Amino acid sequence: MRNIALTISYDGTNFVGWQRQPDIEGRTVQCELEKALGLLHKTPVTVNGSGRTDSGVHAIGQVANFLSPIDSIPVEKYAYAINGFLPKDVRINAVSEKDDDFHARFSATSRSYRYFFHYGPVSPFAHEMNTVWWVRYKPNIDNLNEMAACLVGETDCASFASAGDLSLTTYRDIQKSHFFFENGKLVFEIQANAFLWKMVRTIVGTLIELDRKKHTKIDFQAIIDAKNRKNAAATAPATGLFLWNINFDGERKYP
Amino acid sequence: MRNIALTISYDGTNFVGWQRQPDIEGRTVQCELEKALGLLHKTPVTVNGSGRTDSGVHAIGQVANFLSPIDSIPVEKYAYAINGFLPKDVRINAVSEKDDDFHARFSATSRSYRYFFHYGPVSPFAHEMNTVWWVRYKPNIDNLNEMAACLVGETDCASFASAGDLSLTTYRDIQKSHFFFENGKLVFEIQANAFLWKMVRTIVGTLIELDRKKHTKIDFQAIIDAKNRKNAAATAPATGLFLWNINFDGERKYP
Repeated sequence: MRNIALTISYDGTNFVGWQRQPDIEGRTVQCELEKALGLLHKTPVTVNGSGRTDSGVHAIGQVANFLSPIDSIPVEKYAYAINGFLPKDVRINAVSEKDDDFHARFSATSRSYRYFFHYGPVSPFAHEMNTVWWVRYKPNIDNLNEMAACLVGETDCASFASAGDLSLTTYRDIQKSHFFFENGKLVFEIQANAFLWKMVRTIVGTLIELDRKKHTKIDFQAIIDAKNRKNAAATAPATGLFLWNINFDGERKYP
Repeated sequence: MRNIALTISYDGTNFVGWQRQPDIEGRTVQCELEKALGLLHKTPVTVNGSGRTDSGVHAIGQVANFLSPIDSIPVEKYAYAINGFLPKDVRINAVSEKDDDFHARFSATSRSYRYFFHYGPVSPFAHEMNTVWWVRYKPNIDNLNEMAACLVGETDCASFASAGDLSLTTYRDIQKSHFFFENGKLVFEIQANAFLWKMVRTIVGTLIELDRKKHTKIDFQAIIDAKNRKNAAATAPATGLFLWNINFDGERKYP
């Protein structure tokens, strides 16, 4: 069996998330992918994803691997072959063959997410609104960056953990946490060894709520230090969130 | 009566074009706008647009004017008031009050269009494909720019005129015609005193067809000189085309 890794983009708008969920109605990316791979290989195939994106969350560089029961498809033809069986809102961007011990989730050493914001006049292009959070004030990027920097390092993220999260620890190794402008849009980027459930959206919701009320990094640090979800603000909408990149280099950290 | 000018953006995907057409089924931007203005002013209102965009063509800076029967709405509140009555795929960006003799179509001295291209892997984000033309080869921007430059000046555009066009002359004063990259996308921009029906899309279709076949400006100049629509290539799809800006400065030229 060949161990095949896929890099996948999807528009999360019409999905209830990445993961196959027997008791929830609606499309999942994992299910569409397994359906396509099953048709292509003429046998059931199970995929492992690097990160489980929630309902409405998009991906640019999601990674998944599966054991291919056939040898007849050359690796450079795989993307084209799979895309032929996939719906238009999921695309395979790259395919590579890996060692037997590669696992998209357990081999990943860090993940990065990007969150896109819109402010100012609403666009008539629905897509521009389906891939951003429309914040109805003018964000202060310097203040947001000062707050975001408080997260970098080995940080206890208990204040941004949702009740349903089953992780053994709430510490995360956060390598990047900053705002920047790209193509005229405000973007928040965060990279960490791993993320708690809804952690990025809770951080974003809290940063924007504080900035809107002209609070500063002192207030944000106090929320981190409280280690209590009740001190953070409401979770930001899924529309603006993209699973951006998965890294497999370097050492794996907890959890 | 106040003479009110509107700057309008719309996603053309779900419209059969700008102009109200009694014998064609489907939504038009003019109709949606007149409906909204009728509800707001509680009396029928007619709008004049600067350019009649075709089915599927988008706009960023369309301009229209109308005579307002009421004085009660301050000009700075007008955009907000009209947007409340409009569907989400049409937005008013700016409103200003003009002299009595201002007419969005007849006072305009030039118009500019932009055409957006996509090449390389397909995006799963449907919108990214609804606002571009997906050309399935790698365009040569230098060659395209050399060809596009042939159009600048007082040019007989008969080769790019559609059979249904009723203009008195096929000469157009073309001020800009060039390709550039913006936000990672290839863009064609053309500015002229006015355009013949489907002229921009026929120019784009011809430039891309020639570039794909590695033809050069000599071949494009020969097509212009032929003054015959049969020498040009097929019209490019509406999806990539945006009415970008209307200018009202300077002298009006034919027609």
